Amino acid sequence: MDPNQSEDVFSAFVDEYQKNFFDMLFRFEGKAEPIKEAWTREDGRGHGLTCVIQDGNFFEKAGVNVSRITIPLSQGIYQQMKGRRVPGSNLDQIDMNNLAQYDTYANGVSLVIHPINPFCPTVHANFRTIRIKERETGKVIDSWFGGGSDLTPIYLFDEDAKLYHQNIRDAIVEVTGDDKLYRQYKKECDEYFVNHHRKEARGIGGVFYDDFNLESFEKGLQFQKAVAYANLKSYEAIINKRKDTPYNDENVRWRSFRRGRYAEFNLIHDRGTKFGLMTPDARIESILMSLPLTARWEYNYHPKEGTEEARIVGVLLKPVEWV
Amino acid sequence: MDPNQSEDVFSAFVDEYQKNFFDMLFRFEGKAEPIKEAWTREDGRGHGLTCVIQDGNFFEKAGVNVSRITIPLSQGIYQQMKGRRVPGSNLDQIDMNNLAQYDTYANGVSLVIHPINPFCPTVHANFRTIRIKERETGKVIDSWFGGGSDLTPIYLFDEDAKLYHQNIRDAIVEVTGDDKLYRQYKKECDEYFVNHHRKEARGIGGVFYDDFNLESFEKGLQFQKAVAYANLKSYEAIINKRKDTPYNDENVRWRSFRRGRYAEFNLIHDRGTKFGLMTPDARIESILMSLPLTARWEYNYHPKEGTEEARIVGVLLKPVEWV
Repeated sequence: MDPNQSEDVFSAFVDEYQKNFFDMLFRFEGKAEPIKEAWTREDGRGHGLTCVIQDGNFFEKAGVNVSRITIPLSQGIYQQMKGRRVPGSNLDQIDMNNLAQYDTYANGVSLVIHPINPFCPTVHANFRTIRIKERETGKVIDSWFGGGSDLTPIYLFDEDAKLYHQNIRDAIVEVTGDDKLYRQYKKECDEYFVNHHRKEARGIGGVFYDDFNLESFEKGLQFQKAVAYANLKSYEAIINKRKDTPYNDENVRWRSFRRGRYAEFNLIHDRGTKFGLMTPDARIESILMSLPLTARWEYNYHPKEGTEEARIVGVLLKPVEWV
Repeated sequence: MDPNQSEDVFSAFVDEYQKNFFDMLFRFEGKAEPIKEAWTREDGRGHGLTCVIQDGNFFEKAGVNVSRITIPLSQGIYQQMKGRRVPGSNLDQIDMNNLAQYDTYANGVSLVIHPINPFCPTVHANFRTIRIKERETGKVIDSWFGGGSDLTPIYLFDEDAKLYHQNIRDAIVEVTGDDKLYRQYKKECDEYFVNHHRKEARGIGGVFYDDFNLESFEKGLQFQKAVAYANLKSYEAIINKRKDTPYNDENVRWRSFRRGRYAEFNLIHDRGTKFGLMTPDARIESILMSLPLTARWEYNYHPKEGTEEARIVGVLLKPVEWV
């Protein structure tokens, strides 16, 4: 497919997914007014749409953000990409002494959803394409996909974790013919979403891929769509099942405590956040919309043995094969 | 002074300051039981005492921590020090190809105090000495002081900010004869405690010095003591004046919102936190005790013009000369 056309096709997927995901959230949230903000970079080289629910009926905070930006390829961004991009990629062709002639184009949707009910999990997902282009000609030097989705329960329901992983696995098998990529990206997810300073996973995982291409753009897009809609479908099913579970102050306290850990990961380790904060004149509010409305840090708190709180911590210290 | 003796003398200051500061807090907190935890590194090369008040009568969270550790001089720590240590320091003598023969010794007290009443400010201070030693002989290769203190009001009282700065300035003048170091370290503080991604200061500053020596160990210690006790005295006076100010839910919301910003700084920018998280087998709970009990992130929230909330944000965007 012609590069310009494939950008439009990817944009259409991203915009549609944002709409579908946000509509799904509103089936739980009810009729409250969402915050929808279209933004444009001052230099004209980027735009996006940030959709947020805050202090809602069902969601404490939920953000689904589309962003499409073109920024100069800096030394920092180049090194970060180079460290992870597959060897032999076209990135090797780039003239390192003349980075200023290239642009980085990033197009994607990202979402983080924090429900009020502590028995409903937090979910995060991101689906993007990155391209390196010659600024003058617009010629695409290199292009790849990245993203993934993962679930962060406050309380663990094994059947929800299994459902979440099973649906992603099945979606990947349908596109690629086997579960090899599920296995690989599940492992990458387990290794990435970790508060390394605590040796504790952020949640029960999902899939994470920083960099991939399949045999064609169409196939890659199909993969992104498959994971994206597995995520939507599973999340809807899980919160549908847990939405009426009664909860008490102790459950809310544990929720806020776990959200403190979520904020730690996003602010210390998350590469997407770092990339965002490194971007000149980035829209900070869209980048940090992933942070929870409320968080809590209690000094040296460890839940009592035998409790549900202790059980999930045990799982976070040691990733599980859910399917 | 003999190096071993001077370490003991510095330790005595640090321990005494911790006790005095914590005792001062308890004049406000009342008789609730504090958390006092003495800890020792598993490898025997460090120990400390962490004193915490949490969910108290007067303080939401308050931590005063003494720590005294000896860790191998790693490449990462060496580069970080080298980048900031004064040119011509003894750090230049170190054999970079043989870093393993050196140890880093860090001895200090650090505190972060978050009161419940939104009209009482948060305070942070740290007073330390760092030494590089030959492991085998214990010979001190280089030695310097670091630290400072700074105030983070939720609501701004100009007279409190002036008092805080005036007392530190006067204390420094008394030790050094003029206010040159106050001016220099006030500026460093304004430049350091900034959420750069928001171009917004964390608070109204104070002094910050990463690295200094005066003409003798005794003089350096005198400087540390002067700033430390100016901080204690001012903080006590300020919370004494503000402790009975009535507040409402809106004030509490603003407090939690500002604490979100505080957490951002500590997790993204704070070099002490980074140094801590970089230290092998560090005591994470002592490092992150600086985080507030509660924090809040509201999407794209900006206080209305003309309010007290908007006034302090204005000051945080543009540092003030308070004395």
